[in-house]
Amino acid sequence: MKLLLRLKFLGTDFCGWQYQPNARTVQGTLTAAAREVFGTDCRITGCSRTDSGVHANDFAATLELPFADCPIPCARIPAAFAMRLPPDVSVTAASPVADDFHPRYTVLTKEYVYQILVSPVPDPFLYGRVWHYPKKLLPDAAARMNAVAAELVGRQDFASFMAAGSKITDTVRTVSDCRVQREGDLIILTIAADGFLYNMVRIIAGTLLLAGAGKLDRVGMRRIIDAKDRAAAGATAPPEGLYLNRVTYHE
Amino acid sequence: MKLLLRLKFLGTDFCGWQYQPNARTVQGTLTAAAREVFGTDCRITGCSRTDSGVHANDFAATLELPFADCPIPCARIPAAFAMRLPPDVSVTAASPVADDFHPRYTVLTKEYVYQILVSPVPDPFLYGRVWHYPKKLLPDAAARMNAVAAELVGRQDFASFMAAGSKITDTVRTVSDCRVQREGDLIILTIAADGFLYNMVRIIAGTLLLAGAGKLDRVGMRRIIDAKDRAAAGATAPPEGLYLNRVTYHE
Repeated sequence: MKLLLRLKFLGTDFCGWQYQPNARTVQGTLTAAAREVFGTDCRITGCSRTDSGVHANDFAATLELPFADCPIPCARIPAAFAMRLPPDVSVTAASPVADDFHPRYTVLTKEYVYQILVSPVPDPFLYGRVWHYPKKLLPDAAARMNAVAAELVGRQDFASFMAAGSKITDTVRTVSDCRVQREGDLIILTIAADGFLYNMVRIIAGTLLLAGAGKLDRVGMRRIIDAKDRAAAGATAPPEGLYLNRVTYHE
Repeated sequence: MKLLLRLKFLGTDFCGWQYQPNARTVQGTLTAAAREVFGTDCRITGCSRTDSGVHANDFAATLELPFADCPIPCARIPAAFAMRLPPDVSVTAASPVADDFHPRYTVLTKEYVYQILVSPVPDPFLYGRVWHYPKKLLPDAAARMNAVAAELVGRQDFASFMAAGSKITDTVRTVSDCRVQREGDLIILTIAADGFLYNMVRIIAGTLLLAGAGKLDRVGMRRIIDAKDRAAAGATAPPEGLYLNRVTYHE
């Protein structure tokens, strides 16, 4: 049988999601814990790869059990994993899904959040959890970034926002939501789409920051999108500000 | 001249505030950074000792400079320290104070916050920052704790809430505020007083939790206070949920 797990993880000390033989990854850590919880090897498949240092408020993964029924009530699975997982990853929920359910291919939308701390001084409680940006932005930086972010909404070719060297050829995605708000010293970008290209959110964050510095307006953003060229966009923002925030599926 | 510094620190990797020759402390770390910032040794005095693992949203300390005037404008001191301090401590503000100002003896009020995460599963983003309590409390736990907390407000003898073995003899303190609220899975205790006994907030947190489990009411709390005996109160809650939240001074 197949279970859909929901996870939360602090990405700081993980080399991303994807299993690697000699590195600490979320998939590897979860696979080892599942072996203890269920007493058997289980195949675990994630909803996306994530880079080293990237976090998840809500990551989805399937777990395939070589049993017809789950030996533990689903409601108790999070607590059973809590006893076997290290403190930087938690299983928050578990539910049965159909055998043909795939956590990556059946995604309806993914929502990411990117957090930038704009302050001359870092915040000890946010270290590794935000992009600390010590230089000055314009007083209305978030509003300017929000206006420019609106250009990204819709079904378009996002080739300008894909890491150079990626092998993906279909770079058209549908962004359903892209907005920027300010909360104290934090600038928070929220972006939802049916799928994302490699480094897409981090390149968008780095590009939108130019708007916060007064160096990019909507016309400029339109030009970047139309260029379909990575070199046209801004720098790739660092991984520590990025959170996979929500994943929704087709029924 | 003397400066009053405001600090923020994540206590997890510090052996508390107080300098120790062979341990990483906030005072020791700050003293080393100050030597680099000002090019000379400076005496640094804190507003309180804090235990290993205890955090501060707003800690106050004085820094004595062997100069008549500060060689750096006060507004630039936080950024100057930011370049020399590790990521778990920040100087957030600096201002000149009179030579006879003492950060401990002139305190008007100190406010502490204690955070308890009530959830069967830990939260990776709150690890080391809350007391994770995986057992069940009553649905109205925070309201019950808040009602019992009201008994602590006022000028009274808090001997029941002082760590056994402490050498302090005057155990009367004035608690000006003591309340408990719930935010999602977090139970948050806020307590302000003119001073605190050793482990007072952590013993109060451990005692109030009994109210959240239905094992203590206002009458019981009154009995604990009147006993003036550490053995009458509840367990000492762990350090990781405790934050020095605010320190105010006589003008």
